[in-house]
Amino acid sequence: MMRTRPLKVALLGCGVVGSEVTRIMTTHADDLAARIGAPVEIAGIAVRRPGRVRAGVPEELITTDATALVKRGDIDVVIEVIGGIEPARSLITTAFEHGASVVSANKALLAQDGAALHAAAEKHGRDLYYEAAVAGAIPLVRPLRESLAGDKVNRVLGIVNGTTNFILDKMDTSGAGYSEALDEATALGYAEADPTADVEGFDAAAKAAILAGIAFHTRVRLDDVYREGMTEVTAADFASAKQMGCTIKLLAICERAADGQSVTARVHPAMIPLSHPLASVREAYNAVFVEAEAAGRLMFYGPGAGGSPTASAVLGDLVAVCRNKLAQSTGPGESAYTRLPVSPMGEVVTRYHISLDVADKPGVLAQVATVFAAHGVSIDTVRQTGKDGEASLVVVTHRAADAALSATVEALRKLDTVRGVASIMRVEGE
Amino acid sequence: MMRTRPLKVALLGCGVVGSEVTRIMTTHADDLAARIGAPVEIAGIAVRRPGRVRAGVPEELITTDATALVKRGDIDVVIEVIGGIEPARSLITTAFEHGASVVSANKALLAQDGAALHAAAEKHGRDLYYEAAVAGAIPLVRPLRESLAGDKVNRVLGIVNGTTNFILDKMDTSGAGYSEALDEATALGYAEADPTADVEGFDAAAKAAILAGIAFHTRVRLDDVYREGMTEVTAADFASAKQMGCTIKLLAICERAADGQSVTARVHPAMIPLSHPLASVREAYNAVFVEAEAAGRLMFYGPGAGGSPTASAVLGDLVAVCRNKLAQSTGPGESAYTRLPVSPMGEVVTRYHISLDVADKPGVLAQVATVFAAHGVSIDTVRQTGKDGEASLVVVTHRAADAALSATVEALRKLDTVRGVASIMRVEGE
Repeated sequence: MMRTRPLKVALLGCGVVGSEVTRIMTTHADDLAARIGAPVEIAGIAVRRPGRVRAGVPEELITTDATALVKRGDIDVVIEVIGGIEPARSLITTAFEHGASVVSANKALLAQDGAALHAAAEKHGRDLYYEAAVAGAIPLVRPLRESLAGDKVNRVLGIVNGTTNFILDKMDTSGAGYSEALDEATALGYAEADPTADVEGFDAAAKAAILAGIAFHTRVRLDDVYREGMTEVTAADFASAKQMGCTIKLLAICERAADGQSVTARVHPAMIPLSHPLASVREAYNAVFVEAEAAGRLMFYGPGAGGSPTASAVLGDLVAVCRNKLAQSTGPGESAYTRLPVSPMGEVVTRYHISLDVADKPGVLAQVATVFAAHGVSIDTVRQTGKDGEASLVVVTHRAADAALSATVEALRKLDTVRGVASIMRVEGE
Repeated sequence: MMRTRPLKVALLGCGVVGSEVTRIMTTHADDLAARIGAPVEIAGIAVRRPGRVRAGVPEELITTDATALVKRGDIDVVIEVIGGIEPARSLITTAFEHGASVVSANKALLAQDGAALHAAAEKHGRDLYYEAAVAGAIPLVRPLRESLAGDKVNRVLGIVNGTTNFILDKMDTSGAGYSEALDEATALGYAEADPTADVEGFDAAAKAAILAGIAFHTRVRLDDVYREGMTEVTAADFASAKQMGCTIKLLAICERAADGQSVTARVHPAMIPLSHPLASVREAYNAVFVEAEAAGRLMFYGPGAGGSPTASAVLGDLVAVCRNKLAQSTGPGESAYTRLPVSPMGEVVTRYHISLDVADKPGVLAQVATVFAAHGVSIDTVRQTGKDGEASLVVVTHRAADAALSATVEALRKLDTVRGVASIMRVEGE
């Protein structure tokens, strides 16, 4: 039984994602109607620069007054694909106040203000869905929030930024340095003119905050996520990684502490074994490992960005939110009942790979080993090489608290026999 | 705001999955209550042989009268993990009639009678969820049914049977023959005493029917699925596959025809390139590729069977169904509006790898090539080897209708110069 009065959608933003959402909603209108149980139509599209609207987007729907659009009162669902904090936050809040549910692709906003937005949605009895905010088309928010709702997730480990994965993959396969690989990514459209958000890990950190919150049923904000970018990864690091049977990926890692009483979330480059499924994630693809108590190890893989994949995620949410609207119900809201605190990076248990330039004389290794022991850090392997009067030591540790590892490195820097710390990288995925 | 009157669950079956469901519902009761918004308790457990009930399962809940249990009238959700067609089908139907929603892990029943069961659920305003019926803990039904509800799925290609993947992986890595690998799988508990359902592809075919129906929004029954088991795959086939840079997997393949007017579903062993992500799925793991118009290529990977993983999927569904119950709504029901017909195997477009034992004399290749040409099948590569007066031809075709490929093989068998068709295998995943 199909309702004939269409559900009305307001689209905020009409860039790459918004215009693809518009295109699919137009060309696949019959399918969407059949799946929702009612036709769905775009009632208005808010843009900043109407002159730049793309081909195929109906001109009569365009407005520059986004606030008036969300205040119309007859809008069932607002799709927000503007990005950034403001005006997106105010528009979403206004949308809830005026009776609309919201589908958003805005990772930065959700990582910063997710709790407040969820509260606003709940107050007004509306839905807030955001599958597109994490890893593009890859179903990840819904599986974590719904499929694993009866399980206990202990770890989420993933490649959630396509730009940096493209750059690291180039460095790995071609031996290129960071700048060269970045230039190629920019030329091919994988990196933006200002790549800061990607290469410094801000984008991945926002996604880590969202994933950790959902996975552990608690609140994790962007500020809670430890973040290191990948701009300092060198060709020499890749060479070291290869010697260990590893490659280097920028990982988002969300973990429940061993005692279950806290969680951690972090983003940093790390060495992972070539045998790990994440090691073979190439180009701009994303992939996320989820480890749950009953389910075991699951992996989700796919395109993490781009207009069409992101539109796919947005429209999946649109169908769900429209169905909820017709059923006069809402989907699952925020689940943050565990109130687990987020521990600082120092408490994360991990492993380090450390390259030291050292004096080529007897006793250096003993000195270095003493420093590790003094900080309670156990050494897994040491490789010592000497050439041209210089020597280098590559140390890989066993698992230890990051604070202890970090203090060890500081103490090593102060040794006379240590001329420099060539690189430090965490080792994950074992 | 938590409701205090508990939701009541009737569990049908208490084998490996059922006892794990019971264990998790007991140990994680608080988490489940928080996520659902109300406590949930097991009101009764129906088993066939009460003496065989496992440790940790409360004895006072055990009954042998499953029908009376689902007829009690106060049951909110029936979890069916008996398997098989009857009595599962009657019990599920009775459950709907008496006001319960149903969570099932029963692939055989859903592949055979999914439409009727969905209709019964809808008639009584109840939910029918079955994430656990396909690929164990891997979220697949929900992503296809909900996350991709705004997209157009064109292809589902996957390893959905862990037993056969374990056997094929053994054959690949150790060079073992089929019987030897099956024995190992049996010894390790990966294969049942009667492995027919797995090795003849019935289990995978049921999953293919379910996946195709959901993916293409149509009805696909078990009988619609073309099925070939993997008992005739030999060590020689693996050797041939290796020469082509391939391995062999038992694949479930659901495709939309190029003209969009029909679909196909099939299960058979096939060669896939080692570079394909499915090629590296080891042991009893499952993995499913989904190709959608907007989303692109997605992959879902994880444990496809086992008590805990299956229980994880069952409990995810339980949480969803309980939430729906509290919201007095239901989740998405059957979506079969496209009514796309299922084409027979002959219309499937695929590639063949054919090994022929031929007479070692001039002109044989020309004769063979003429047969291919006469059936409109284009040859990709031919490799001719002769030893000890015998010769063999390995032909790999371009894509053609399966009927044409099959007719070609029949015609080849009739050639005097062809002494035998050593093996035929489809080539997929490119």
